[in-house]
Amino acid sequence: MIAHMQYLTDTDMGLDLGQVNRAVEAAFADHGKGLVQMPPKLYITLPEGDFRTMPAYLPSLSIAGVKIVNVHPNNPAKGLPTVMALTVILDIATGQPLAVINATRLTNMRTGAAGAIACKYLSPKKEVILGIIGTGRQAESQVKAIRQELKIKDIKIWSRDPQHVRQFADRFMEFPCHAMTIEKVCDCDVLVTTTPSRTPIIRNEWIHEGTHINAIGADAPGKEELAPALIRRARVFVDDPAQAIHSGEINVPVSQGLFSPSEIAGTLGEIVIGKKRRETSDEITIFDSTGLAIQDLAIAKIAMQHGTQVDLPFP
Amino acid sequence: MIAHMQYLTDTDMGLDLGQVNRAVEAAFADHGKGLVQMPPKLYITLPEGDFRTMPAYLPSLSIAGVKIVNVHPNNPAKGLPTVMALTVILDIATGQPLAVINATRLTNMRTGAAGAIACKYLSPKKEVILGIIGTGRQAESQVKAIRQELKIKDIKIWSRDPQHVRQFADRFMEFPCHAMTIEKVCDCDVLVTTTPSRTPIIRNEWIHEGTHINAIGADAPGKEELAPALIRRARVFVDDPAQAIHSGEINVPVSQGLFSPSEIAGTLGEIVIGKKRRETSDEITIFDSTGLAIQDLAIAKIAMQHGTQVDLPFP
Repeated sequence: MIAHMQYLTDTDMGLDLGQVNRAVEAAFADHGKGLVQMPPKLYITLPEGDFRTMPAYLPSLSIAGVKIVNVHPNNPAKGLPTVMALTVILDIATGQPLAVINATRLTNMRTGAAGAIACKYLSPKKEVILGIIGTGRQAESQVKAIRQELKIKDIKIWSRDPQHVRQFADRFMEFPCHAMTIEKVCDCDVLVTTTPSRTPIIRNEWIHEGTHINAIGADAPGKEELAPALIRRARVFVDDPAQAIHSGEINVPVSQGLFSPSEIAGTLGEIVIGKKRRETSDEITIFDSTGLAIQDLAIAKIAMQHGTQVDLPFP
Repeated sequence: MIAHMQYLTDTDMGLDLGQVNRAVEAAFADHGKGLVQMPPKLYITLPEGDFRTMPAYLPSLSIAGVKIVNVHPNNPAKGLPTVMALTVILDIATGQPLAVINATRLTNMRTGAAGAIACKYLSPKKEVILGIIGTGRQAESQVKAIRQELKIKDIKIWSRDPQHVRQFADRFMEFPCHAMTIEKVCDCDVLVTTTPSRTPIIRNEWIHEGTHINAIGADAPGKEELAPALIRRARVFVDDPAQAIHSGEINVPVSQGLFSPSEIAGTLGEIVIGKKRRETSDEITIFDSTGLAIQDLAIAKIAMQHGTQVDLPFP
């Protein structure tokens, strides 16, 4: 048998974002039922950043593989994205590598999809004023994915750089977009935080009852965006407890003894399968997203049918 | 900046095995000095096998990356190797993927190199009778690597299938090769065991004083080749304690309480830097090999200068 392998790039072109949301939602359902294999991601520290290695196996989709993704904040000055990713897909039956996928943009999309699924289940309103903190690529992915699940009435935006706010608003001409102070952005229905902050920038008193928050930015030890008091006041759902404790929004409060892992309200997977839910319309809910390898496999499964293919000799 | 990435295959062609041994030895020296980042490999179980994900960073070589390798014992019947591997190499400065390397044969070579380095330091004789248990690809790699470090006078060979012994001997016409019972093969200076056994096949009383043993076969929980009494009688060196306890030759004795992790005599890295050594010519030494990601990076560093390159668009 002559085997071969494919390199796939531009697989995000033409992907249907509603389909991506459904695929990621199904992966979280499997996670909630305990039907996946996925050890916590491994971190390796490099001089100017890090990279994470994320293997998993999703039996229901017959897909297994590994995503390798870096975070290098100085990259934009070098003309490269901060985050770049490859996903290697293996044949379930033989373990042979089937595909190496350029997963840089897919990573943004699958993180957006997890945020959208959290909003679908945790936002008490289906028509919302959306608050956006930070205006990078992930903020854009969140809006694109969330609009598949909720009707967005208005977008309130804050960024350290006012020009970034204008550029962001220009990408979403179909919604009324408003540049505001960070405090006023927090007066919304669904708040999405996507900054690389290492000190809390969202104060407890700025958040009103009933708000749902997607806490996306914290993805490594030491990062945090929300005041510990806000975390204590809210019901906190995570994608994966081990990863959230290590590197999610709760990692700093947990390490400082301000939040206990036993206070985690549940996982997104448990929410999707109906085991956990928002209990009252006025409680504050937080989705602490760290990013799971099963999200990468779920999007890879549909992405592999798109893009440019290069045949590679193997073994 | 337009980036790109390369796929590399056949990189083992023309590799100098002495150079491979030196590169792997240097990586173990860094490991012994605590200069590498390398979390224990992650295992994912598939229906007919498994795959392991092995990230690492070797600052002295300025190389970082991840090897992904499967073990599927039913593959030969499907015309595929049992073990297949890819190594992804990342740029230290930016985290960008630089190369995807077909690492199937490199994996065999780097495992052979570790065995050869163990023999170099732990065999009390420099001219040896070599005993080979099991005649698969790894047995061949061990002989090819060991002959770079020791003078081989004779090879004694045992395999379950006598025809495999003849085929193996035909590959090493330069040495006198002898098919023997497993007990008689054990009467040698350096014994190399490379079977996938899940029950001990090497009995304590067959091994005489002063023997060095490379225990290569056990690489997953439940696998073992050596009688626990032999392990207790010998001084056991490992490549990495965490991996050896989880999946190396000592994994079953440790899980059964027959061998304590505190009884490990040291690591191969500590031997290479002179911190640990064979203490008497008549003690029995065992090198328990599980395979380290730093071996894969060390061989990748030299292999990347060989083979066939395919340019791939990225990001």
